[in-house]
Amino acid sequence: MSDHPRPDMTPVDHAELALLLEVASTPKPGNVDRHRDHDDLRFEHFLAGAVGARPGLQLAADPERPPIGDAFERAVRGMSQQDGDNTQFGCLLLLVPLVRAAATDRLSPAGVAEVTEATTVDDAAGFYRAFDHVDVAVDDPPPDADALDVRRGADAVPALRERDLTLSDVLSLSAERDGNAREWTTGFERTFAAADRVLVDEGPVTDRLARIFLDLLAERPDTLVAIEHGDERAAAVSRRADAARGDLAAAEELAEAFREEGINPGTTADLTAAVAFVALERGVPV
Amino acid sequence: MSDHPRPDMTPVDHAELALLLEVASTPKPGNVDRHRDHDDLRFEHFLAGAVGARPGLQLAADPERPPIGDAFERAVRGMSQQDGDNTQFGCLLLLVPLVRAAATDRLSPAGVAEVTEATTVDDAAGFYRAFDHVDVAVDDPPPDADALDVRRGADAVPALRERDLTLSDVLSLSAERDGNAREWTTGFERTFAAADRVLVDEGPVTDRLARIFLDLLAERPDTLVAIEHGDERAAAVSRRADAARGDLAAAEELAEAFREEGINPGTTADLTAAVAFVALERGVPV
Repeated sequence: MSDHPRPDMTPVDHAELALLLEVASTPKPGNVDRHRDHDDLRFEHFLAGAVGARPGLQLAADPERPPIGDAFERAVRGMSQQDGDNTQFGCLLLLVPLVRAAATDRLSPAGVAEVTEATTVDDAAGFYRAFDHVDVAVDDPPPDADALDVRRGADAVPALRERDLTLSDVLSLSAERDGNAREWTTGFERTFAAADRVLVDEGPVTDRLARIFLDLLAERPDTLVAIEHGDERAAAVSRRADAARGDLAAAEELAEAFREEGINPGTTADLTAAVAFVALERGVPV
Repeated sequence: MSDHPRPDMTPVDHAELALLLEVASTPKPGNVDRHRDHDDLRFEHFLAGAVGARPGLQLAADPERPPIGDAFERAVRGMSQQDGDNTQFGCLLLLVPLVRAAATDRLSPAGVAEVTEATTVDDAAGFYRAFDHVDVAVDDPPPDADALDVRRGADAVPALRERDLTLSDVLSLSAERDGNAREWTTGFERTFAAADRVLVDEGPVTDRLARIFLDLLAERPDTLVAIEHGDERAAAVSRRADAARGDLAAAEELAEAFREEGINPGTTADLTAAVAFVALERGVPV
């Protein structure tokens, strides 16, 4: 690692920096970024969220290995110490297993799959408890899974235990309709592939991340947009992102348009933070 | 502290968040901020600098109490792990004793004066070693103090030891011409007074910090501007800041003008980070 541009930065440092670089990268149409706030969700809420999340990220990297579900819950609780409510819930859901993988020298699709596949019912319980700290936009559960609705938070834990569901099991249930859950069940396929593209891209890292955000949004409909506005609208958003690729002025216009329309491709922003983390670990310059 | 808006945030967290809020606050005419970069010094360099500084800030808060000069040197070394060179040297010089004071429950002018007055020659040596990590704009030393020129870095340490100079002694030597050294020798007088004003101000914390930056610049010439452009120019910069107070459009124009003129009131930005830290510790909302 002696030729790493940040020889003293740990996976925890890189995870925190990934959260900061994600929100700083602009334009990321529809999301809070360096140049845009939402009405009640401002840039500085994300800065405080990133700092507050750190103790949870530290647990994720801990050699004593507490359940990563506990690390996630601690990260979300710390993140919530600002007035913007949910800033980085989805980012942290992706970062926690990536940090665990990096801290145990296996930051690869196979390595992070080992981490997610090793999760237990205790990890699932931590994940559910995390929903008690902030409001998270989620889809309704499948018709037969009311007892497992994440919006029940800690109240759903007995049902989890009764059915012996691990965190990996829980996320598999929503992999079809939640882009973050999909990463969990595919060895973070899109994350690693996109990080490779960021590494060979050029220019400031925040420009690279803004470009990859648009690429990711163009390539696959954002699942938060689908939950909030339906599948057709989400598909249209991706087509519009595709049309703006490689054209900064068009991307800026799209950012204005999405803001006016209330379109928030938040899952793609989560994925961008995960991509930033892998790229940082692999030496992308800052 | 149970009514603190950030019950789980430590002085180290608040110091890191102060660094982030300082650079995010805009407009801060002449400095990198949320809306402006310099040519080779960009916003993301400050984000990475803040994360990288953390292990040094942790040493400053350490109950085992290593010399704060060592904590400072570690913070600067960590900060320097980005491509912008010196991002937050002056901020850290102010934050390190403030963090030590906060971590020992004496974050007050008297408490931080105890911290600075307790410094030793070892602290001074750490301070000098920190100059080896980045390029810092400083004034020439007094005619009889060539051997103590900070630009000598670690090479000046034997001269320090020979003269038995503590870090407090060293900074007293430049208190007349360096605003940060002046804070060290006055119990952080301006820092605490400005933090009180930030606490009773209203609106987003980044707006409050942008306002206090302009106030501080108006009230006293910036010593970095004086070093780089002379005393008369520094006084004129303060008069221009005074004229822009309370007028956002005028402050934005001033930011453009200072950028064109190469005016960088960096010491006032350092002070703003220290103010942010004290305000965060005292519960300013984010």
